[in-house]
Amino acid sequence: MSRNIKEIIQKMTLEEKAGMCSGKDFWHLKYVERLGIPSVMVSDGPHGLRKQDEQADHLGINESIQAVCFPSACATACSFDRDLLKELGTAIGNECQAEDLSTILGPAVNIKRSPLCGRNFEYFSEDPYLAGQMAKSHIEGVQSQGVGTSIKHFAANNQEYRRMTGSSEVDEQTLREIYLAAFETPIKEAHPKTVMCSYNKINGIYSSENPWLLTEVLREEWGFEGYVMSDWGAVDRRVEGLKAGLELEMPSTNGINDKEIIKAVENGTLDEAVLDQAVERVLNVIYDYVDHRKETVWDKEKDHNLAAKIEEESAVLLKNEGILPLNRNGKTAFIGLFAKKPRYQGGGSSHINAFKVSDAVSAASDFADIVYAQGYMTVEDKVDEVLLREAVEAAEQAETAVIFAGLPDSFESEGYDRQHMRLPDCQNHLIQEICQVQPNTVVVLHNGSPVEMPWADEVKGILEMYLGGQAVGEAAVKLLYGDANPCGRLAETVPYQLSDNPSYLNFPGDGEKVEYKEGIFVGYRYYDKKNMEVRYPFGHGLSYTSFEYSDLKLSKECMKDTDCLTISVKVKNTGNRAGKEVVQLYVSNQTGTSNRPIRELKNFEKIYLNPGEEKTVIMELNKRSFAEYNVDLHDWYVPSGKYEVQIGHSSRDIRLSAVVELISTVALPVKVHRNTVAGDLIRNPKTAPVISGLVKRMRSRFGKTEESEDEALSDEMEMHVLDGMPLRELTKMTGMDDGQLGEFIQVLNHAANQ
Amino acid sequence: MSRNIKEIIQKMTLEEKAGMCSGKDFWHLKYVERLGIPSVMVSDGPHGLRKQDEQADHLGINESIQAVCFPSACATACSFDRDLLKELGTAIGNECQAEDLSTILGPAVNIKRSPLCGRNFEYFSEDPYLAGQMAKSHIEGVQSQGVGTSIKHFAANNQEYRRMTGSSEVDEQTLREIYLAAFETPIKEAHPKTVMCSYNKINGIYSSENPWLLTEVLREEWGFEGYVMSDWGAVDRRVEGLKAGLELEMPSTNGINDKEIIKAVENGTLDEAVLDQAVERVLNVIYDYVDHRKETVWDKEKDHNLAAKIEEESAVLLKNEGILPLNRNGKTAFIGLFAKKPRYQGGGSSHINAFKVSDAVSAASDFADIVYAQGYMTVEDKVDEVLLREAVEAAEQAETAVIFAGLPDSFESEGYDRQHMRLPDCQNHLIQEICQVQPNTVVVLHNGSPVEMPWADEVKGILEMYLGGQAVGEAAVKLLYGDANPCGRLAETVPYQLSDNPSYLNFPGDGEKVEYKEGIFVGYRYYDKKNMEVRYPFGHGLSYTSFEYSDLKLSKECMKDTDCLTISVKVKNTGNRAGKEVVQLYVSNQTGTSNRPIRELKNFEKIYLNPGEEKTVIMELNKRSFAEYNVDLHDWYVPSGKYEVQIGHSSRDIRLSAVVELISTVALPVKVHRNTVAGDLIRNPKTAPVISGLVKRMRSRFGKTEESEDEALSDEMEMHVLDGMPLRELTKMTGMDDGQLGEFIQVLNHAANQ
Repeated sequence: MSRNIKEIIQKMTLEEKAGMCSGKDFWHLKYVERLGIPSVMVSDGPHGLRKQDEQADHLGINESIQAVCFPSACATACSFDRDLLKELGTAIGNECQAEDLSTILGPAVNIKRSPLCGRNFEYFSEDPYLAGQMAKSHIEGVQSQGVGTSIKHFAANNQEYRRMTGSSEVDEQTLREIYLAAFETPIKEAHPKTVMCSYNKINGIYSSENPWLLTEVLREEWGFEGYVMSDWGAVDRRVEGLKAGLELEMPSTNGINDKEIIKAVENGTLDEAVLDQAVERVLNVIYDYVDHRKETVWDKEKDHNLAAKIEEESAVLLKNEGILPLNRNGKTAFIGLFAKKPRYQGGGSSHINAFKVSDAVSAASDFADIVYAQGYMTVEDKVDEVLLREAVEAAEQAETAVIFAGLPDSFESEGYDRQHMRLPDCQNHLIQEICQVQPNTVVVLHNGSPVEMPWADEVKGILEMYLGGQAVGEAAVKLLYGDANPCGRLAETVPYQLSDNPSYLNFPGDGEKVEYKEGIFVGYRYYDKKNMEVRYPFGHGLSYTSFEYSDLKLSKECMKDTDCLTISVKVKNTGNRAGKEVVQLYVSNQTGTSNRPIRELKNFEKIYLNPGEEKTVIMELNKRSFAEYNVDLHDWYVPSGKYEVQIGHSSRDIRLSAVVELISTVALPVKVHRNTVAGDLIRNPKTAPVISGLVKRMRSRFGKTEESEDEALSDEMEMHVLDGMPLRELTKMTGMDDGQLGEFIQVLNHAANQ
Repeated sequence: MSRNIKEIIQKMTLEEKAGMCSGKDFWHLKYVERLGIPSVMVSDGPHGLRKQDEQADHLGINESIQAVCFPSACATACSFDRDLLKELGTAIGNECQAEDLSTILGPAVNIKRSPLCGRNFEYFSEDPYLAGQMAKSHIEGVQSQGVGTSIKHFAANNQEYRRMTGSSEVDEQTLREIYLAAFETPIKEAHPKTVMCSYNKINGIYSSENPWLLTEVLREEWGFEGYVMSDWGAVDRRVEGLKAGLELEMPSTNGINDKEIIKAVENGTLDEAVLDQAVERVLNVIYDYVDHRKETVWDKEKDHNLAAKIEEESAVLLKNEGILPLNRNGKTAFIGLFAKKPRYQGGGSSHINAFKVSDAVSAASDFADIVYAQGYMTVEDKVDEVLLREAVEAAEQAETAVIFAGLPDSFESEGYDRQHMRLPDCQNHLIQEICQVQPNTVVVLHNGSPVEMPWADEVKGILEMYLGGQAVGEAAVKLLYGDANPCGRLAETVPYQLSDNPSYLNFPGDGEKVEYKEGIFVGYRYYDKKNMEVRYPFGHGLSYTSFEYSDLKLSKECMKDTDCLTISVKVKNTGNRAGKEVVQLYVSNQTGTSNRPIRELKNFEKIYLNPGEEKTVIMELNKRSFAEYNVDLHDWYVPSGKYEVQIGHSSRDIRLSAVVELISTVALPVKVHRNTVAGDLIRNPKTAPVISGLVKRMRSRFGKTEESEDEALSDEMEMHVLDGMPLRELTKMTGMDDGQLGEFIQVLNHAANQ
């Protein structure tokens, strides 16, 4: 339907316009009956609907409607499967239409900087490329149903501690390459209807009132055309926010901030055109939803089955010493409360009222000989000797023990960070006790973020389910018994211990600031660079079959940074089961020009292969795949030189590689000044001829010793001294004064920029 | 002699005064014959005299006079022996008098931030307390002879790469606690006559023109009364430097910068009083030297013997699996060029023309059955198969092999940094080949900074000699054969690999800046905090005897931060040889209030014990021992709470500990603002009553779910949400507008600061 929104705005009173810039209540936007502006509702997400029935409270305490709880992002990212995420998004979009929800909040693409972030379960990855790809597909799916998304939390919100007041102190290169990059691709390519700004400050400025973030980067550079909403309660100074590019404040402030906006327009500190534009952006999205409303059927059982499928494709088999798949004729002890009452989602705004939950004991009991023992409790972290003894006995009497362990709700949630990276001590104790009596032990994990696994060498199998959604029980059983073949890959590194993590010395900060001192070296970028052993690397994941790689081919050996590169590689299923492989493409900068990560994920493809089948996988790389963000250029820049394209089964299992040479089409500007070092001038072919006379005169000042052994050393030292010598010293030593130096600098600058 | 220096200055012309602010040439200050201002000479140091005979060139290429080369600071710091350093300083001071040198440049106390710094061999430690104590004793020794010192390089000069133009980007807390702290104690307590400013910038400002560094900290806070000289060529803008507190520029600028000073006085941009004060400071030190001139005898042989003794007390026995001391009746192969031509000093300004050098082969041949094989060459890093085969055969035919390995001159020097942390590959290869044929292998190391030791588990003994001075050969032999008992302790951590080092991701920076992102977590402060395994920890060192600790007593259980604490502990020699133990005292902040190191060295004492002998060691701690630098207070601050006093044989071998509780006498100021979080106000007993009503009203807004299991979680989440909620949100939710909030903030601030 076509309508003239500008005309509608012209008819609105100042109060009505200000009103459109904040919620009517917790979940609804305001409406203007006399102008036909409808009321629309938003819902928390993103892995299912949390539609509140009544006056809501943001804390998930009042009941929301019964819905389907899909696996959390921590799990779905491990699918490395764009199509699957799109399918998930499409299902959720359909559910929203069925429930008349205009926008579902999410996906959340914040980078997993520390395993301690309480909200990591809602986030995809430590890697911005993977997070961006998953978010893009999710958004495409939801929005294909005419429902809006709200990619969040924009930006640099990587912890819960002091999230409403703390400042994330991050240099721009790191923001661009890591924290913003996860937003950039989905915003540019999937066009989410809305963006949700984060609670925190970035370098001292609240995201909700940061013009650089909300306007310069988001709209002017990335071309975002929807509206920005605040996280619930993220607004400090409302008028500054509006000016910066925050259109919608949520939830309602009971009119307090509407009045601030009105006052500012009236006293001239806010241009009414800014308000008009904000209202236009909000109305555009409202009407876009209205125009795409449709009658749909929400088949909860069907979506439950989809949740099961997604979890099967997402769970990661971390370890398997010949114990999985389980023998369905053998007697198996399922141990641990989570086998019967799985932890399948996290706490906080994303908490869903699941219409049903499948558990592993029920799912397996149909066809296998299962005994169950609770093993531990979750109410407090204390060994219950009765439960423990019962579990140990059950394990002892079975052929195999499968321990369902993980983090209780109280260990991780929106609103607060984890205090450590361990499982509850009582669970670690249980696992160790069981390993004493049962060599055939498998651990199945339910957790939103990695845990330390002191028992990893003692068990024979580890299956990481993350927070797997309401169908986690049946998915786990299918994977354990081989009805599904594990094909998830870790979307984050599992370190040995918390202190290994790159953010460890600077997390969660002093309450005022949190300094991102590890810079771009987040996740595997850090562990690889620091040459550290990790428990399980990024991209790791086992299968019940095996794959072989061959015939890596690059479309070019040498190319301009503006060219595209096509990579092809053959992958063969060399085992005797059908399975899926995630072909991971990493780029390794070998130009030697800067402090770069060892490798970075720049593409991936997931493929299905029958036993013996071989496929050729084609992937593309473009300028951005090779680029670093150059803060002087204010742009992405590809240093000329060699780059290795690496094809891996994981970030630490590179199977094939090939080198391509890139030639930058951008010349970095040179500015010679009195403290420019001689080495830079000598190495620059444009300034070298100008400086050579001076260098010769300088060299002739160095004498030589008679001792031949010292001579090589002297030469080396002279070279280094000269290399690092500022122009001011070089000229002073040859008798130039400041005036002459100034003239000489002009000549050099002229030469350098010709 | 008493004279009126102010009067002399009054008689000086502007040109003469400007002239006193820079050198006459490379090594002399200017003189004014008509006023009787004498010419004085300075000499490079600090581990012996480098007095240049003729027109000098700073690069150590022209020959300097024959002198005694004492062990470098990298070695002497390992003595952990204040008296020994004082003895060394006294001997050097005496040599200076004999050679009419007014000032010897050094000691150098820069912190070893990275093992790659080319000049680490001149520096003491990764720990500022140890570096400061060593420097203090060294200065006291030199200056007891009426000769000046120049503590250097002030400050934050921790690499050679781009040292003349790069900016060390360091936060103030880190500067104060680590990088400046090494200067602070010696300057306050040993009063060096001069301070040498460093080449680099600190946070963008050249040290040579940094008023905060050279005046505010150095003079106003620390009470420095001598003069500041520039490192050779460290001056960018001379007049700015003079204003900032740089009195003497070295070397001569051939009048160029004298003219700048004159011009500035004449055109009024420089107050002549600033110049007068600078000249007065320079003259004070010149006349101080003149007044303390004395005739002395320089007995080179005596000082050689002292050099040997110092090295014996400094070398660190890293590993000894029952192989040392060597059997003097057995046949031993001394392998490696350094056994005959030891590397005993580093390259650059500190390079000494040693009058003689003792080598291990000569020293041992007098009494032991020694065969020698060169094993490797140093001219290039290439395996020489002939030398290798010869060495392997020698090792095979001996009972024991002692390999003298280390870094060739070209691997580390002033002027450039190391490229990696390895020994030459040809030496590693040699060691590994010899281990194949000879299980009884010892490695003796000659190096200015740690090396990776991939063969550490394969050899039975490792003796770290560092750069041990001209008597290193005889010292090594005495230690190897047990004529001396090793008593050195590592003044730095030896990590497994370079990438373990805390500065690894940020060293040496991009050429413009080097960011000290590891902050205060330098050396063992990092490895301990990150819970990392290291090859050999800070403070480690073995002996041929053993020591037992007992009876740790603290003089107080609870004290004000302004009190002093006396610690006593008994140490017994439980072996059958006399030996020295370094009793190390670490303080561990257990207040839980901030991101502090696990432990920090705060005192130490070295004691000599005969077999069976027991002594009580008494050490003191004061406010500074417990304090952190608080940038808001601009002062040192001791958080109230518990601190553990740990007595260790090394930083990772804590033998005894006891807890003391400290009570701060300083109240940190509180400033409540609209974004102050509720938790801070609730926890502050002064604001808690004011905020309690609001909190209650807020709490009543939260509903409760019926599900009991979720309730505990909800409570926890509510608590965290409230804790992190800014005042602005708390008040908004209860209907306050900005005006009312402003009034409420006033009430809170009044309450907080009562």
